[in-house]
Parts: sequence; structure tokens; C-alpha cells
Amino acid sequence: MSGRAGDHVISSRPTEEALIARYFAPLAGPGADGLRDDAASLAPSPGHDLVLTADAIVSGIHYFPDDPPESLARKALGVNLSDIAAKGAVPRGFLLTLALPADWTEAWLARFAEGLGQASRASGCPLLGGDTVKSGGPALIGVTAIGEVPAGRIVRRATARVGDRICVSGTIGDAALGLRMRLDPDAGWVRALDAPARAHLADRYLHPQARLGLADAVLRFATASMDVSDGLAGDLAKMLAGAGATAEIDAAAVPLSPAATRAIASRTDLFDVAVTGGDDYEILCTVAPDSCDAFRAAAAAAGVPVSVVGTVGSGSGLPGFRDAEGAARVFAAGAFSHF
Amino acid sequence: MSGRAGDHVISSRPTEEALIARYFAPLAGPGADGLRDDAASLAPSPGHDLVLTADAIVSGIHYFPDDPPESLARKALGVNLSDIAAKGAVPRGFLLTLALPADWTEAWLARFAEGLGQASRASGCPLLGGDTVKSGGPALIGVTAIGEVPAGRIVRRATARVGDRICVSGTIGDAALGLRMRLDPDAGWVRALDAPARAHLADRYLHPQARLGLADAVLRFATASMDVSDGLAGDLAKMLAGAGATAEIDAAAVPLSPAATRAIASRTDLFDVAVTGGDDYEILCTVAPDSCDAFRAAAAAAGVPVSVVGTVGSGSGLPGFRDAEGAARVFAAGAFSHF
Repeated sequence: MSGRAGDHVISSRPTEEALIARYFAPLAGPGADGLRDDAASLAPSPGHDLVLTADAIVSGIHYFPDDPPESLARKALGVNLSDIAAKGAVPRGFLLTLALPADWTEAWLARFAEGLGQASRASGCPLLGGDTVKSGGPALIGVTAIGEVPAGRIVRRATARVGDRICVSGTIGDAALGLRMRLDPDAGWVRALDAPARAHLADRYLHPQARLGLADAVLRFATASMDVSDGLAGDLAKMLAGAGATAEIDAAAVPLSPAATRAIASRTDLFDVAVTGGDDYEILCTVAPDSCDAFRAAAAAAGVPVSVVGTVGSGSGLPGFRDAEGAARVFAAGAFSHF
Repeated sequence: MSGRAGDHVISSRPTEEALIARYFAPLAGPGADGLRDDAASLAPSPGHDLVLTADAIVSGIHYFPDDPPESLARKALGVNLSDIAAKGAVPRGFLLTLALPADWTEAWLARFAEGLGQASRASGCPLLGGDTVKSGGPALIGVTAIGEVPAGRIVRRATARVGDRICVSGTIGDAALGLRMRLDPDAGWVRALDAPARAHLADRYLHPQARLGLADAVLRFATASMDVSDGLAGDLAKMLAGAGATAEIDAAAVPLSPAATRAIASRTDLFDVAVTGGDDYEILCTVAPDSCDAFRAAAAAAGVPVSVVGTVGSGSGLPGFRDAEGAARVFAAGAFSHF
């Protein structure tokens, strides 16, 4: 639909149809009819369910207005594919809702579409449709991603069992530290990092990588799964509250990159940022003890590092993070889930 | 995901999870796991494809900021279900991306959710998931709607054939006139209408009604179909351009409500508004001549009025609207499709 409510100005800019044909139609998948229709058709593979998720990112809130448009396209798709992977699903396609500010340029859109095409091809997740509107404010990039899992096999968030091992992919805290670095580039801990470490943290904030390679191992072995988007501590609390359980986490086992390790060594309170800051887009899952070796082997075969950080316990409190001295700390749940 | 980029303020407002549990979980459909997970699962009925579409509405652009939140919820879902119906599909569910302005209130959200629940139940289209974010500007309500059709049977936009009859459901122009009335309530043509006529036009702008009842007749008999969202003239031009065809429309056959008829009688240029203004959310479809009676009978059985307004012709020009004096007018395509 086009603009309404006093918005009937004939502009010299290309029409929405022309922009779609030029920039987005090349990304269209089967069933999308070249984006010439208002809807796409899609069927799951035989014996499969579709898995649907929606996440939006907003300029000035979820990213910096001057971030490269290619990066924003990767991020918008990536944060959604992260949910798909965490459910044990493989991507099938996505729809895009793009709300543009008054000062959008075709150059920005061209770069955005270029990045979106690269991310789409890299993940085997074609564009199925969407909408382009004026935002009346900052840009908003909304994605609905669709994946598929064998029928009835979606891996849920709240289904962890007492005794299950708690596993995390990759490393935690890099994106949160990367954001802190962007906000305060002259901080002492930032200046203490070398250039490759700074680049690592910046890249992890800007370019979340959905752990699509881990989806099959999650599907085969995880009893519960979610992606870490709002911080390990808070997301773990959500997962365990849903299961009516709690956990003790070995703080030293929380996987940290060399860059995060160095940052935390120079300012130990940055560990709290690492486990509460969010934007990790790693997979947090639980695995029965007797499946743990098989899960780790499957993850290794897929090239995704995983770490066991604790065990699901009975009870209802917030998960405690136990440090080397044996002191357990909790992080207030929900502190970062306001919007 | 929650706020980022300097947005880590602990607020006294309910968390996103609490709002979802209170207002949106009651709308959740099967496969949505009570909105306690980051993704939903959905399978089409055996032998069916899913049909996917996404449309967003923005405060101050697609609606007035002081429109009742219940009405906005109905509109946001309705404009999407209109695409589902036009494809010959029945609704299965939807995802909601809700971007809220800084001054959102829980009272607004409660009313929005109430209206959304009513619209969801009335259309048999449960909530499957979504995201709630800060907009950094005006509100944006984005919906991805999912329907289903028998496998391979989605009714496309560009598949009209020369000789097909062009059919339109309901009446055209009411919403566009309703918008004009809102923008200039003291216009002479508005003052010349009686109160019920004004109420009709206002309601048609505020509450688009997806023609879900017509979907089965479209599926059985239409050779091509789309909903009229950007104006009959422009949408018809898109439909026919896709088919490499043109048409002659009998201007007198364009279905008008009594209110629109009265408005146009007092100011004949309002006919142009009616056929170019958009927001009709009627179905525009083509039907082979020998199916026309059966289509009309099926529509009548479904309680949806349909009108034949012209015939698909060979050629490539914009469709002409021929008036009672035999003069044909064209309306510039795309004039209202800028965003």
C-alpha cells in the first residue's frame, strides 16, 4: 500500500514497484513470483512443519544510523535466522518490512539490497515478499523469517529437564562489549585492546552470525533451545523459568573470546556486561547428560564450538553464576528486556 | 530483542514479556506455544500451500494518530487478510511487529490488543508471534499474514487472459472519499451528505473489511486476482501490465455506494478520487466469460456483491474508463504508488 492521510504527493522518485523490480526482485525465491504479486506461496518439505519468527531493528535503537546499510541488512536477517537455527530449523525464506525515513536515498537502498542479497544467498533464505513504507521517523527493518523442521520436532524454549547440561555456542559478550566500545571508544579498557581485538568486538556487534550450522545438532540432541539475544543471564532465566527449574552456572566456563577475556581482565565489571548485554545471537540449549558427547561431536562436525556452562537444577530461583572463589551471583531477570 | 545502542535504561514499565503475557498471549493460536517462545510452528493442511504476505501501517501516514487503537488493529490485520482473500486463500495466522512511540501508554496497548483479538477471532486468524520495539518516531503496525490454498492453486495477479471479464467486489471509492472527508470536513460536498452517508464513508476508511467470503469463489473461478489497495485504476493497470493486456472499463459500471454516488453527483471530479484514491480493500479479479455466471452465483451465495466493470483486451495501454458520452479517460499509473 502507498502513503495515506494527506500523503498524496506525486514524487520524482522511483515508484515502489520500480524499486522492488530493481533491487529486490533479484532476491526473490520460488513461490514469490518475482515479487510481482502481493503474496507468495510456500509449502514445507513433505513431513515438515514451517517455523515462523519476526524481529525488527530500528535505527538509533538497535543500530547506529551511520552503520553501513549492507551491515544492517545482514543484521536484520541474521537476528531472525538466529531464532530459526535455535529451533532446530533450516531457513526457507523471509518477508521484509522496510520503513524508510524521509531522507532515504536510492544509494542507501542499493547498498542495503546488496547486503541483503549476500546474506540471503549465504543462508539459502530467499526473499518471499514484503512492504516498503515511509516511517515518519527513523528507519525500521522488520523481517519475518520462515524455516522448517521435521513435523512436530520444533525445539522449544521451556522444555529443559532437571539434570540436563546447559550448552552455549561460540563466545558470549563480544557484541555487548562491541556496543560499549562504540559508545565510549576512549575508555581505558578499549585503549588497552589491540586493533584486532577491537575489530573483533566491533564486528560481532555489527554482524551477528546465526548459528545455522548448529541447527541439526540442536534438532537431534537438544531438549530445549533458544538464541541469546537479550543477554545470557536473562535469557537463561527465561528458559529455566519456563521449565520451572533453575541452574548453577560455572562463571569460568562461560565461553569468552580472547578480546573479551582481555577486556574483562582489565576491568572485571565488564563480565557483567558480557553476560547481560545481549546481541550475542549464540545458541543456548540444554542436552541430556547421556547425549552430551554426541551433541558436542555433532557441533564439532558442523564447525561450531560449544561449551557446557552448567546443569539444570530443581528449584525456581534465578540461575546463579559461581565464580572461582565459590561465590554465586545472580543477575536481575528482565533488566534488559524493557523496550 | 530489546533496546540497544545506548538504550539500556531500566524502566518502571512492564517488561515486554509481561505485556505479551497480559495482552497478546490470549490471542495465540496452536503452534504459537502461548507466545512463550521465539518462534511458532505451522503446517498447511494436507495438499495445501501456505500463502504469505506482509503490509505495515504507520501513524500519520496510513492512519491518523488519534484513530481508535481498536480500529488500527482491525485495519492492520484487515489490509493483510485482504491480500490473503484475493489469492483465494483462507487465513491461518499472523505475526505482529509493533513499533511503539516514546509516549505509548498501556491503555492504548490494551485497547489495541482488544481490537486485534476481535479481528483475529472474527477471521479465524490467530496470532503466531511477533516483536515489540521502540519506533523512535511514530507507531508502526506491521503484520505478516499467512493463509493456505490447495497446492499450486494460488491465484496470481498477472494471469488475466484477453476476453476475461473484469470483476470488482463491493463498492469502490468509499475509503478514499472518507479520507478526503477527514482531511476537509467542511468541504461543500461533505456538508451536502447526510449523517449516515458521512458515517459510511468514515467507516470504510477506518475499517477495511477483507473479502474473506469471496476467497473460495476467487479460487474456483478467477483467472487472476488482487486486492484494490492503491486505487482501482492503478491496481487494474498493474494487473493488466503484468498480463501484457489492457482493458476498457465502463465507468458507469464501477460499483459505487449510495454515499459515494451522492458525493460524486455534487462534485463530479470526486469520481477520479474514487477510482484512484485507494484503501478500498475490495477484490479485483478476472473471470473467463463462460465462468462469469458461476462466479457471480458463488459470490452471491457468499453474500458478497460483485460487479462486472469491463473486459480484458489485447494491447498494452493503460485501461480506459469510458463514460456515458463514449469518451475514454486514462489515469496515470503509479501516481499513487509512491511511498
